[in-house]
Amino acid sequence: MNKLYLEDFSPGQTFASQSATIDADAIKAYARQFDPQPFHLDETAAADTFFKGLAASGWHTVSTTMRLLVDGGLPIAGGIIGAGVDEIRWPRPTRPGDTLRLVTEVLELRPSKSRPDQGLMKVRTTTFNQKDEAVQVMVSNLVVPRRPG
Amino acid sequence: MNKLYLEDFSPGQTFASQSATIDADAIKAYARQFDPQPFHLDETAAADTFFKGLAASGWHTVSTTMRLLVDGGLPIAGGIIGAGVDEIRWPRPTRPGDTLRLVTEVLELRPSKSRPDQGLMKVRTTTFNQKDEAVQVMVSNLVVPRRPG
Repeated sequence: MNKLYLEDFSPGQTFASQSATIDADAIKAYARQFDPQPFHLDETAAADTFFKGLAASGWHTVSTTMRLLVDGGLPIAGGIIGAGVDEIRWPRPTRPGDTLRLVTEVLELRPSKSRPDQGLMKVRTTTFNQKDEAVQVMVSNLVVPRRPG
Repeated sequence: MNKLYLEDFSPGQTFASQSATIDADAIKAYARQFDPQPFHLDETAAADTFFKGLAASGWHTVSTTMRLLVDGGLPIAGGIIGAGVDEIRWPRPTRPGDTLRLVTEVLELRPSKSRPDQGLMKVRTTTFNQKDEAVQVMVSNLVVPRRPG
């Protein structure tokens, strides 16, 4: 896949990713390390909680989204480097067995005044499950190199 | 530690967490799974990149922040349940060997109109390294139960 520079992007462009399936073991493994709460660790304990069943940590959904961006979901020359995030919403949780995919839309482009070799790109990345329901909407600002020479 | 309900919080309150040290192996292990880019995977490859040396994925810093919140950094009855995030900034990366700790400040409280048993709390969680430099500032909205009865 060709890697893209700031000059190659324009507002309204969209990029699709590959997909990734998250099973119950992966949900629990992430949770044991980073978010050890009952609704992310154990089906029985999760039943009586806010989530009414086992659900992935929102940060596991974010982490999986990052992996899909890196694996070709957004082919920026120089990689996926976040300057910051404007918003993350989780309209519904990722559930065991969900298959996630991304659609990323370019919102804004801004060349850097202080760094002539790069700029910032604001994008909205929506993470969908296999029912085409959004499980996450994230608006982030990425560092994008300008085309050399 | 006593677990707190919506009625127990007020704007301006702050909560401190325990600390956690992130070594190079942990940086690479997270990156292999979720953010496999050279600046998160290999010291030599990282030297010539934007980060000028091995750096943790921003999402690894977020994930570690979540672990510190869950491990007593913010003692909410019912756990740490994010309704969404308003902002994340990473003023500098987490580096190998950094010891991270949190300070969380309560910004706003809002009882739910539709759910009399809960409300939303907006908090700013700043993640500091061992030099008391901020590596992350996150503003998030959490679901907090109201005191029963």
